[in-house]
Amino acid sequence: MSDDLDTLDRLTAPWSDTVAVDAAGVAVGGDEVLARRRARGPATSRQVVGTHVQVVAEGRALVVAEFEQSSGRRGVQTQLWQRGVDGWEVSATHVMLQPPAFDRRIWRVVGDPLVLPLASGPLDGTRIAVQDLFAVAGQAIGAGNPTWRATSPLEHAHAPVVERLLAAGASVAGLARCDELGWSADGRSPHHGATPNPRSGFRVSGGAASGSAAAVAAGHADVGLGIDSAGGVRVPAAYQGLWAIRTTQDVVSRDGSLPLAPTFDAIGWVARDAATLAAIGSVLLPEPVTAISDVVTVDAVLELADDDVRTVLGAAVDRIGRWEVDLVTPDPWVQAYEVLQQVERHRAFGEFAAAHPGEMGELAAERARQAAAIDDESAAQAREQVADARERLRKAIADRVVVLPSAPTVAPRLDAADTAALRQATTRLTCLAEIGGLPVVSVPLATAAGLPVGLSLMGPPHSDAMLLELAASLA
Amino acid sequence: MSDDLDTLDRLTAPWSDTVAVDAAGVAVGGDEVLARRRARGPATSRQVVGTHVQVVAEGRALVVAEFEQSSGRRGVQTQLWQRGVDGWEVSATHVMLQPPAFDRRIWRVVGDPLVLPLASGPLDGTRIAVQDLFAVAGQAIGAGNPTWRATSPLEHAHAPVVERLLAAGASVAGLARCDELGWSADGRSPHHGATPNPRSGFRVSGGAASGSAAAVAAGHADVGLGIDSAGGVRVPAAYQGLWAIRTTQDVVSRDGSLPLAPTFDAIGWVARDAATLAAIGSVLLPEPVTAISDVVTVDAVLELADDDVRTVLGAAVDRIGRWEVDLVTPDPWVQAYEVLQQVERHRAFGEFAAAHPGEMGELAAERARQAAAIDDESAAQAREQVADARERLRKAIADRVVVLPSAPTVAPRLDAADTAALRQATTRLTCLAEIGGLPVVSVPLATAAGLPVGLSLMGPPHSDAMLLELAASLA
Repeated sequence: MSDDLDTLDRLTAPWSDTVAVDAAGVAVGGDEVLARRRARGPATSRQVVGTHVQVVAEGRALVVAEFEQSSGRRGVQTQLWQRGVDGWEVSATHVMLQPPAFDRRIWRVVGDPLVLPLASGPLDGTRIAVQDLFAVAGQAIGAGNPTWRATSPLEHAHAPVVERLLAAGASVAGLARCDELGWSADGRSPHHGATPNPRSGFRVSGGAASGSAAAVAAGHADVGLGIDSAGGVRVPAAYQGLWAIRTTQDVVSRDGSLPLAPTFDAIGWVARDAATLAAIGSVLLPEPVTAISDVVTVDAVLELADDDVRTVLGAAVDRIGRWEVDLVTPDPWVQAYEVLQQVERHRAFGEFAAAHPGEMGELAAERARQAAAIDDESAAQAREQVADARERLRKAIADRVVVLPSAPTVAPRLDAADTAALRQATTRLTCLAEIGGLPVVSVPLATAAGLPVGLSLMGPPHSDAMLLELAASLA
Repeated sequence: MSDDLDTLDRLTAPWSDTVAVDAAGVAVGGDEVLARRRARGPATSRQVVGTHVQVVAEGRALVVAEFEQSSGRRGVQTQLWQRGVDGWEVSATHVMLQPPAFDRRIWRVVGDPLVLPLASGPLDGTRIAVQDLFAVAGQAIGAGNPTWRATSPLEHAHAPVVERLLAAGASVAGLARCDELGWSADGRSPHHGATPNPRSGFRVSGGAASGSAAAVAAGHADVGLGIDSAGGVRVPAAYQGLWAIRTTQDVVSRDGSLPLAPTFDAIGWVARDAATLAAIGSVLLPEPVTAISDVVTVDAVLELADDDVRTVLGAAVDRIGRWEVDLVTPDPWVQAYEVLQQVERHRAFGEFAAAHPGEMGELAAERARQAAAIDDESAAQAREQVADARERLRKAIADRVVVLPSAPTVAPRLDAADTAALRQATTRLTCLAEIGGLPVVSVPLATAAGLPVGLSLMGPPHSDAMLLELAASLA
């Protein structure tokens, strides 16, 4: 009960079939149980309020302990104790706490629903998790930072995209967490914690639309709405086994949402199935106007992913034609993209960052400092280079659909080492769509071990509705 | 997995130490496990997505099964299987589901927080669960009925009592569920389900402020605000082991809240400890103006409670003087109280009930019909009789504090038979304060078995602050 980790480790049976279950999922094997315990941080102090012992066999006992934390929150723990040569050890644990009011790593506010539909329509019964970057009447926009929220006005009207969904019968379940000011992107927040990955325990959720995706993966909502500015909708969808779309830039209005980096921002959404993904498209997207000539893969792009992901995608794309083109993002493009992202985020949040030192997390603050240091000439160069790249990319793709990985790896473990290298690898892959302002639909696949992987279909501008159809046909 | 109850029952070891743990708590003994399974209704269909087996001894195996419901919601179940003469049986189960977005039996909407404090003050850090009868800006009042909510306007301002708490540093965690239109009162709703009792598994929560109390008992909020019109704050507090106050009528403004029965309505709140209960009092209550001469018990009032409750209270009040007075509520008073409750609720909700047949639960609809049938003469008589009773009661109590049970029983089990008799017994006890418009503070005690019991201190008008002090001294 005192959370003495050394004692807990000593009492854990070091067997390959030792098992521990808690809210983060199932850990199998003594080593894995120890690793997760070390990663979770100290437990809240608690006191036992009831125990039930069942003798299972000679030297084997099941113990159910009811406990209460100092906050009044109660829990129950079932343990299987076994007496071996080294004394009593625990070979199985199942710990369950009364849940908090709601998971503040997923939601900022949530209701039954938060906002009722405005009318009946094709989206009747569809619950939307809205990323905390959009105006919802009666609430301030939070943007993943508590001070931003506290200093922002209550919105008087819904963002038009939200209004259109409400008018089509959908309800707003709530405002879902997003990574801090778009300046961090793996779903780990210094303010509300690491958003869980409901489909892949003990792994990161991805971001910046971390909460919108987790809400859908956990079944709390049917659709997660977000801004995809740096893979922010596609990456969490890939990590969490969801369907996702990033729309053609400017096809769906971003009015009433906070700009992150307007050159790259596009509306996106996630769903658990292709039909729901497409139903939202039917409400928000214009009629298809672009024909698709061909679906192709580019070897150099597939190679941006690691073996695990390539194996899954390889099997899926074997029937698809190979396109011999140098589409792998050239270094100068990636650099120009990153500079322009920073410059535009600085325009959106630089003043706030300067006025509120110490009220941002370390990662966001560091990126804000870097952004502030970019001089006007570099900014202008980057802008020019991105515009040029956009033109070349659109010309190259023409009316083709390119199949590529949605993210270069499966979701990293929560206890993985520094993720800077992964962030770079992810950017190199995802920034193609942002540079091109292109639509992408991400289809969920899985590795042999059951870990989610995303397959992206990237098409020419305005091919959104056709990509949704194509993706559904793959399901 | 198919929820075949007969098979599940047959596989459950019929022993006294069979144990089953789920979100509703710990059930010990084969019979109790079966009773709860029968009471919970059918389970959602699900499919196993992973299993881990640990051989514990000859004929003993621990099985951990991961499953997924059709909604995408995942869960884990740990079972201990034992081979006996009748084949394999389960002697222990621990079932855990990924929690829903939030518990809609407790909350209608909840946030981090829903409403930020308006200033810093003595209530800094205090999270308030507001019963869904009060105006909170940006939300409609729901009153426990979805149609009432959908047809009510969004509020532009907070109720003054809410505003005062926000101005003193508190935040509004959310709007908590209440029983339907004040016309049902045990925390069981046809719309959002039976509000759980976090301190007393598998027992009713009490109502009408069921959600406000459960939110506090579960640690989701620190204070639950409500209207006490028919024991609606005191009874759930007693059932859930909380401190509670019903204030002197009209001492705290009810502006911005829905009237239930204005002759009896008074603001109340619950907390997990006496200090928090009193802190809210310091913000909302005027300075004490009434002296207290004596603390007394009345045998005839104690006898309104059952043995369990009397035993607990008897021990607590043994040092307190006995008052030989006929204070037990006379039948005509109880009848007049009930008629006037109905008449005033009819004024508040009768038009709605008539306009929306079929959109209210059976119990509320039936009571609405009864209320509509009361003729003007009976209403006038009841009003006169209550006014007379109020005067007599206040005169009799003078400046004494009377100790009485907060409710006549511990919280009934969820599978208890018809509770009409219990409702009558509860009314007879709780209506003393409503008839008198008197303040009451309820102190949590517990039976030997650990079940919550409430001890009430009822004082003369305006003794609220002194009752809070007196109650704290008993803690």
